[in-house]
Amino acid sequence: MKRVITISREFGSGGRDIGKRTAEKLGFAFYDKDIIKLAAQESGLAADYLTQADENISGGSSLHFTIGDMFSYGSYSPETMPMPDQIHVLLSRVINDIANRESCVIVGRSSNYILRNRDDCLHVFVHAPKEAKLRRIIDDFGVPEKNAEKELERTERARASYYRHYSGLNWGLAKNFHISLDSGLFGLEACADIITRLAQTI
Amino acid sequence: MKRVITISREFGSGGRDIGKRTAEKLGFAFYDKDIIKLAAQESGLAADYLTQADENISGGSSLHFTIGDMFSYGSYSPETMPMPDQIHVLLSRVINDIANRESCVIVGRSSNYILRNRDDCLHVFVHAPKEAKLRRIIDDFGVPEKNAEKELERTERARASYYRHYSGLNWGLAKNFHISLDSGLFGLEACADIITRLAQTI
Repeated sequence: MKRVITISREFGSGGRDIGKRTAEKLGFAFYDKDIIKLAAQESGLAADYLTQADENISGGSSLHFTIGDMFSYGSYSPETMPMPDQIHVLLSRVINDIANRESCVIVGRSSNYILRNRDDCLHVFVHAPKEAKLRRIIDDFGVPEKNAEKELERTERARASYYRHYSGLNWGLAKNFHISLDSGLFGLEACADIITRLAQTI
Repeated sequence: MKRVITISREFGSGGRDIGKRTAEKLGFAFYDKDIIKLAAQESGLAADYLTQADENISGGSSLHFTIGDMFSYGSYSPETMPMPDQIHVLLSRVINDIANRESCVIVGRSSNYILRNRDDCLHVFVHAPKEAKLRRIIDDFGVPEKNAEKELERTERARASYYRHYSGLNWGLAKNFHISLDSGLFGLEACADIITRLAQTI
């Protein structure tokens, strides 16, 4: 049976790595931000917009009603919206297409919210203590130690803001996911094992 | 090695049941609200106060600094505080005593916050979709169907308020727990299995 696993994650929590390991264990396709962008480009939907895509959406009012309605009724045109919103709508379409097509692991892009009404999804949130996230940002992402804390705060703020902007929900609430894991305590491999086992049994 | 598992849970999510099953699987002692009260009474600390104990703390400012300081410096006297706060302080002492003494599962009473600085704890949060919680409140707790929704909202508000009052933290944030689980998707037995396995491996 087809299964779609979405992974939302705090910056530096290792969530992307956990997603990749999970996909390998299950033999599922793996999609992160870059591959989703690529898929959108290849679909011909969004090549003009995606070069400037990022998650640095500044505040503003929530769009979750208009985006929901858009897909249901086709009554809004992406071209009349600000560029970040156009990008999000196009990526949402690509994420829905991917989820319709194959068993996969999708990391980021509010994919748990975009796919919230499907019943073949396992929605995962990965977080970690601050020290573990700083360590990963410095060691694995190559951020200079003196900038790490500021970079962590900036990215977490941007991610929470992006999520709230497009979903209308607060970032990091357990109830918006089927399982949330502290990768700092369990480690990346054990987290991937837990998710893999759950995906096989539900 | 001694292990302490704390379980915080949404009303009607089956978290208490999951805690009980987990304790049985692991051969650990099990403490919920009533047993903690009993322990406090037996210790002779709080018999006068505990008859009126409940979680219906109304708003008010956060107490987490004074409670933290109290245990560190002994500079506050429980007798000068409002009764719900006295009860909470005494229960906190009992919970700390229990955690020092034996491997156990402790349900409720902000025990994840009270024991947050220990390194032998696994902190769990259990939640469920609203429909599943209503079903359990009606079928298992015997709340009349027509009152169930109101009772759910009232208890969730009270629980969030209690938690915020004593911890200074928002209720239901994934990052305040090592693992959060949707009991509606996985079922009680599977949740207990997941927690049991994790408690054995960390």
